[in-house]
This record gives sequence, structure tokens and C-alpha cells, in this order.
Amino acid sequence: MLEKIDLSRKLGKDEYKAAAGELRERLGELQRGARRANLPIIVLFEGWEASGKGTLMNELILPLDPRGFRVHYVHSIGEDDQNAYWPPLRRFWDITPPRGSIGIFSHSWYRLVLDGAARTPDSKTYEDISSFERQLAQDGAVIIKFFLHISKKEQKRRLLKMDADSSSKWRVSAKEWRENENYEKRATRIDEMIQYTDRDYAPWTLIEAHDKRHAVVKILATVANRIEKRLGEAEAPKDEPTPPEGETAVSQAPLGGSTLSPSVLKNLNLNKSISTEEYREKLPKLQEKLRELQYELYKVRRPMVIAFEGQDAAGKGGCIKRLTQKLDPRGYHVSPTASPNDWERAHHYLWRFWEAFPKAGHIGIYDRSWYGRVLVERVEGFASEDEWRRAYGEINEMEDQWVRYGTIIVKLWLQINSEEQLARFTDRQQNPEKGWKITDEDWRNREKWPKYEEAAEEMMLRTSTTYAPWVIVEANDKRYARIKVLTRAIETAQNALGMS
Amino acid sequence: MLEKIDLSRKLGKDEYKAAAGELRERLGELQRGARRANLPIIVLFEGWEASGKGTLMNELILPLDPRGFRVHYVHSIGEDDQNAYWPPLRRFWDITPPRGSIGIFSHSWYRLVLDGAARTPDSKTYEDISSFERQLAQDGAVIIKFFLHISKKEQKRRLLKMDADSSSKWRVSAKEWRENENYEKRATRIDEMIQYTDRDYAPWTLIEAHDKRHAVVKILATVANRIEKRLGEAEAPKDEPTPPEGETAVSQAPLGGSTLSPSVLKNLNLNKSISTEEYREKLPKLQEKLRELQYELYKVRRPMVIAFEGQDAAGKGGCIKRLTQKLDPRGYHVSPTASPNDWERAHHYLWRFWEAFPKAGHIGIYDRSWYGRVLVERVEGFASEDEWRRAYGEINEMEDQWVRYGTIIVKLWLQINSEEQLARFTDRQQNPEKGWKITDEDWRNREKWPKYEEAAEEMMLRTSTTYAPWVIVEANDKRYARIKVLTRAIETAQNALGMS
Repeated sequence: MLEKIDLSRKLGKDEYKAAAGELRERLGELQRGARRANLPIIVLFEGWEASGKGTLMNELILPLDPRGFRVHYVHSIGEDDQNAYWPPLRRFWDITPPRGSIGIFSHSWYRLVLDGAARTPDSKTYEDISSFERQLAQDGAVIIKFFLHISKKEQKRRLLKMDADSSSKWRVSAKEWRENENYEKRATRIDEMIQYTDRDYAPWTLIEAHDKRHAVVKILATVANRIEKRLGEAEAPKDEPTPPEGETAVSQAPLGGSTLSPSVLKNLNLNKSISTEEYREKLPKLQEKLRELQYELYKVRRPMVIAFEGQDAAGKGGCIKRLTQKLDPRGYHVSPTASPNDWERAHHYLWRFWEAFPKAGHIGIYDRSWYGRVLVERVEGFASEDEWRRAYGEINEMEDQWVRYGTIIVKLWLQINSEEQLARFTDRQQNPEKGWKITDEDWRNREKWPKYEEAAEEMMLRTSTTYAPWVIVEANDKRYARIKVLTRAIETAQNALGMS
Repeated sequence: MLEKIDLSRKLGKDEYKAAAGELRERLGELQRGARRANLPIIVLFEGWEASGKGTLMNELILPLDPRGFRVHYVHSIGEDDQNAYWPPLRRFWDITPPRGSIGIFSHSWYRLVLDGAARTPDSKTYEDISSFERQLAQDGAVIIKFFLHISKKEQKRRLLKMDADSSSKWRVSAKEWRENENYEKRATRIDEMIQYTDRDYAPWTLIEAHDKRHAVVKILATVANRIEKRLGEAEAPKDEPTPPEGETAVSQAPLGGSTLSPSVLKNLNLNKSISTEEYREKLPKLQEKLRELQYELYKVRRPMVIAFEGQDAAGKGGCIKRLTQKLDPRGYHVSPTASPNDWERAHHYLWRFWEAFPKAGHIGIYDRSWYGRVLVERVEGFASEDEWRRAYGEINEMEDQWVRYGTIIVKLWLQINSEEQLARFTDRQQNPEKGWKITDEDWRNREKWPKYEEAAEEMMLRTSTTYAPWVIVEANDKRYARIKVLTRAIETAQNALGMS
């Protein structure tokens, strides 16, 4: 593909001045429009060494209001880098632009395939990147990807020139020369990358970078046109975000792979219980076992994610307390999931969960989780049907990435029946020390019990995968529930660590 | 000091159960109170290896609502750590708890004096730590510091026990044994540390950690009492945050050290100008020079901070555009300072500027800055007189820390006169392409011109230090201003790099 690019394109000085001047003004205006329309915009620059990335990026930045963009330089990461302690895409989720602003990337997530030229990236990496871009695009992001192209000869010419100049000599190292020597091999890789990741919702634009003027105008025009197009679409009367064209998105997870059968909640035996004596005997032993496992995880640097969901007053807090009672606080954290704050709302709904992902070797415990999208947001109408239906697939993709990184996932649904909830609510209300735990909202949610149960059933069917199955915990008896939670967490960790 | 501690204290089981139970309930209640009162709380744990830090921290955490606290494990940092690219305290500012929540630290900023036992920390490090804690305390934070103490003999006994147990053996390394061998030397260092940093606003509490029950109760009681005391004070009718007791805070920077004389703005010759020809000739040369210096900074890993202040329409944006036109975008960022958002407001007012501090080798450019505290916040009454008066000293301390780390600071005040501002406002209003740049607020601010000028004069007098002087830029002529800004930035960098 790269071979066919016509690198001889040039732009005369006057033509350039007129075109660039007009584009700069348009860009300023469009940036203000994108801000009003709350549009997140991603502009990324990949390209050959010495293709002029810095200069060209600056040309894009200068007409922009600095309050509305941020430049990210994406480094290669070594083994000792903090980022090596997280699933590969986490550091890119971290820097996705909030709505209404522009993220400009010098290098990007394509380092995952372009770094380490020796080994071929597995196709999963391309899938992960496409899933990342598709999720952002479906959330409304405009994604603009540039590859700055120069020929082998031109690259060599530029490197020699830089090397001859004392002020730029230091910028030419063995790495740059190696790239020039292996130009053809790398070109094949780049071709492959572009082919695999050139999608309607995130197309690549090749920039012929021999002539700076040509390159500047093409970059400015591409960015301006893409934003303008989207703003035009946004003005058309629709209340749904524009779905990306082409490529059928994973809008619904298939039911086939589920490890659960429908109506599982209704057929549950909620009378399971254990005696106080058994509880008292088992609890400390299990807690100690989990603490040992926590150290094992730490030693082998594997993260563990334990997510709790369930109706109000199902006993999540009590279970979490028993789960963590003997853990080393330096190796776990409890993340309560409340309604998103403004800053979280300015990002993709999964953003905050990527942010809170535990470091390798640590345990992240979630009091409610990313499943809020298909539970409370579905029932209360905070997410549109399109959005929550899409979420099943998005969540499965995310958990799949986590598991492939080595994460141990335990997802717990605590089930009580309506009578038990009523009894607990009443108790909270009458007990002055627990009074703060109950609000009018809890009573209002209670009225929607059947809707929540329906949502929970579908959630479990669609997201109970082989790699991250749901565990249903019969929770009418608190002691029984706590023991089951600990037992299942321990079993899952032991299995994953090959200790069972 | 450590020698005199009575380590024989013990608590019986029943006594412990009663006391701990009551304290846990009180703590839950107090945490909710602290949340309502918007109190930030810092609890830090330092102590000997094997003193039981993990277990004791967990005992504190368990009665707390996880929505209201966060545990931070503070690592030692190596040379390759990302944190080595910032002034030492930046990573601690980063994790200060927002108002209404509790930050719990396993190790802390005291690593700055306790790590690297061989070299003696210089007294500046103690000053920096005290300045950090004092600034947070004056902002309303409750600071609770624990040192967990065990004897050399007890430490050895515990290490041997851990070493004999296969599940904990891996936790005992050469480092732990070295500490035990050098116990006395380290004890002297700890004594010194406690002596230097035990202040009324951030006192140390020594925990006799031989007996776990005694330690738990003392920790819970200390935290509960400190929070309770503060909540009691908060209820007393005052509209000012409680100033820390003892130690005269640096409430006002002395005028003696200033490099400027009063009324400097009024006596300024604003007619300075240069011709278009001179401007066109000089500008590109200066821009190229600055780009070269940017690479120099990068090579020697020194950060540069360029802050712009000035009346509305003084031309800050235009200067920044010319300053950055030829810079490499991977090595600079422009931070526009708007009114703080909710998350920023939940922190100390300097927090967001520590966050935005450029990495070593990078240039951070600020379109308005931390000086907002003594300019707009003073004039508009967003900060109380106590607060903005205190800010002069706080800002000087911060800049002093930055400079000692190697930072090159350029602070630019762009001065125009009232007539010139009126002309520019009118032009903006009449020009459709610039119309978005002018709002009613600008006109309202204009009426407060004399107040802003008074605030600016005092700011320059109190914060023009030898290590970070103010540069006044006569800005009625835009071209003159831009050239002067570039020239001064270049000169300052060259001086600092020893290139002049």
C-alpha cells in the first residue's frame, strides 16, 4: 500500500498561504463548535522517524485554543515501567479526551503493534485496538489517524542532514538508522497495521510528508472536514449518538456462550443457611487463606477483580467487610461505584473502571461495578436501549482483555427475595445506628424490583462467559452468603494459580 | 526519644473488645460527620519493618465506609521512576485527599528522610515537609501521623518467626535484616525526624506496637479524638478556617527581598514599540533560538515554567502563540487557568498547579497561573483576606522548591493601560471573528481596574524573589511585547544553563 503513494506532491508558496490561512480560521471556529456540541476528538500521529511529526503537529496546534486540547506523547514502555503493571490498553483509556476537547497523540496505542519490530503482533492485538476505537467512536468520539510517510531515500537524506548539524545531531541515534536499514520490513508491518485497523469509524489518512506545505494543508483539511462532517450530522434531528458506519458492532453478546440458564434467579433456593458455630469456625480460616493467596498474587504479579452486584440491602457491604478483614491493606482497595461525577460523565462510561483497575498483584473489590450500565442505567433510563444493549458486548470485550492479561475475575450477584429486603429496610429504619443507611431512594428503587430482576437475569445470561462467569450467592442468610463469597473467591484464585 | 517509650503496655482481651467496639462505632459516625463538614483528613503510618503496619492499618480501615477513604502505598523511588522527573513533593501533592475524605498512607513523604539511610537529609527537606503539612493544615486538613515502634529485640524475634514460616518467608529480605542490624543508627534518624516535624498542626503519635490490642485501641482513639476535636471547633461560629496553632505561619512574605519597587506599574513607559520590519526580522530568529534551548533543556532534564499574568486583553494569548510557534509540541504544553472545577476546588488551591507541573526537560506555559489567588480571588472576594495574604508566602515556598529542583521560572506581567484595553475591547466587539473573545464579564472586570492594579503591585512586591523575579512587559505595542517575552525567556534559560 505504502509503495503506491505518490510522494511527489507539492504545494506552491502562495497557494499554501491562502489555503492554510483559511483552514486555520475554520479550525478555530470548528473547535468552538465541537466544544459546544460536547464532541470528544482524537487526532493521532504515527509515522516514520524524521517524517516531521513535531513540526506538523505544531502546525495543527497553533490555530487551536489551548483550553480545548491536550498533547500526549506516548512512550515505549519497558518492563519496569509502572504501565507494565496494567492491561496494555489501560494507559490509553486513561488519556482519552473528555467530551468537548481534543486529544492529540504523538505515537499512540499503535505502539502495541509498531514497537518491537522483531516479533509479529498477534491478531488479538489488532482486535483489542479496534475494540477500543469502536467503543470510543460509538460513544461519539471523532477519531482521526495520520500516518506520515516518507521514502527510504528521503529518510536517509534527512537523517544525514540532522547528523551533520550540531544542534540536531543528538536526535539521531542507532535506533533511527536501524529503522532506515530495515525500512522495507517495517513498511510491510505498517501496511498490515493500516489494513487491519482502517475502519469507517476510525480511518487512516496517509500524509505524503516530503513537502511540508502539502502535508500541513492535508492535515488541517482532514481535521477540519472530519469535525465539520460530524457537527453537520449532529445538527440533524436525532436523539441517539451516530452509530459508526460499516462493521457490524458487537451490539449484543450472544446467548450461546453463557454458562447460565434463563430465569435462574426465580428458581433459586434462598433458604440455604449455616449455623453460627459453623460460621464462626470457618470464617477466620477462610480469611487467612485469602490473605495467603493475596501474597501469592503479589508474588506472581497477577491482579484480581472482585465485583459485587445485587439488590439494595442484599448484604454487599457486610460481605466486603468479611472479605477484607484480614487482607493486607497495601494490596487491596474497595471501589464503591456511585453515580458518575461530572468528570467521569465527560468520558466513556467504562473509563472510570479502567482507571480504578488494580495494579498487577493487587486486589480490586467493587461495591457495584461497570454492570451499572445494564442495571440501574437501564432501569432508570439513564442509558438508551441502544446503549445498554451494546454494553453487554463492550463489557465482555473489556473483561476478555483483562483475563488475557492475567486477571482473575470474580463476579458475585447477591440475591435476596423481596420479603427479606423489606425486613432489612424496616430494621434499618428503626435502628438509630443504621438509619443513615436507608433513604427515600431505596424505597423508590424497591418498587422497581421486577424490573431490576429482569435486568439482572439478562445481564447474567449475556455476560456470564467462560472466562468470567457470574456466581450467584443466595443471600437471605447473611452468614451463608459471606462464607460462599469467600469460598468462591478462594477457589477461583487457586484455580487460576494452579494451586487446586 | 524512642528509648524512653514504654513498650510493655498491654491490653486485656475483654477491655480491648469493649474499647475497640465502641471506638469503631464512633469512627463510623465521625467519618460521616467529617464528610458533612467537608474535612480532608490525612492519616499516615510510618514505623519499623515488621511492626505490623498492614494489620494495624486494616484495623483502622474496617470500621470506615470505603466510599470515604483511600489507601496509598508510597514506594521508594528509583532513578528511572517517572516520579524522578518532578520536584520531590509533587507526587505527594498528587495524592492529598479531597475535602470530605480520608487519605491513609502506608509510608509517606517521610520516605524523603527515611529512605537512603546512609546520607543525612539536609535541613531543607525537613522545611519542605513542614511547609507541605502546614499549607494543607491551614487549608483545613486534619493531619494524623503514627510511628509504629518496636524494640530491636522484638523486631529480630518477628523477622525470625516470619522467616521460619513458609507462607511469610519471602517477605523477609536482606533489607529487613539490614534494618535490624543498623537499628540504633536508624533510631537516631527517626528521633531527629520526629523532633523536626512534630508540630501542633501535624503532631506525631508514637504507637507502642508490641501488643497489638494496645496499638489498635491507641490508633483508633487518636484518629477519633482528632476528628472529634476538629468537628467541635468547626461548630463554633467562625467563618475562617481554623489556623493551625503554634508556629508562626509564613503569613506574609517580607518586602525586603523584593527586586522591585512600589508603584512600578504606574511609572512604566508604555510607549515602547518596535517597527514591523524589526519585528519580522527578529521574531523567527528568537523562535528558532528558543527551540534550540528546548532541546537543551530536554537533554539536561530541566523543566521550565513560563507564567503569564496581566489585565484582560493585555495580549497573553498572542504572546503564547509566538512563543510556541516553533517549539516541538512533544516538549511543551500550554495550561490555561480557568476558575477551578469542582474536583479542583475539593483540593488545596495549589494542588492543580502541582498536577500540571511540566516533566523534567519540558516547558509548561501558563495562561494565568497560581497567582490567581492574589489577583482575581482577592479582588472578587473568592479568597478571604487571610487566605490571599497567606498565599504570598505559600507561593514563594512552592517556587523555591521548584527552583531547587532545577526549574527555570519566568513570570511575565503584561501591562497595558486602560485606554489601550478599551480600544481592544471595542475592536473585539466590532469584529465578528473576534466577538467570541469578549463577554460581559470582561466589561465588569474592567470597572475594577484600579483594584486589579493594586493587587498586581502588591503581588509583584511580595513574590518577586531573587530565584523567581517578575518581568514586567510593556504591552501597549503587541510586537514589542512579543519580542520582549521571547527575549527574556531565552535569556533566563541561557543563564540557568550557563550558556550566556
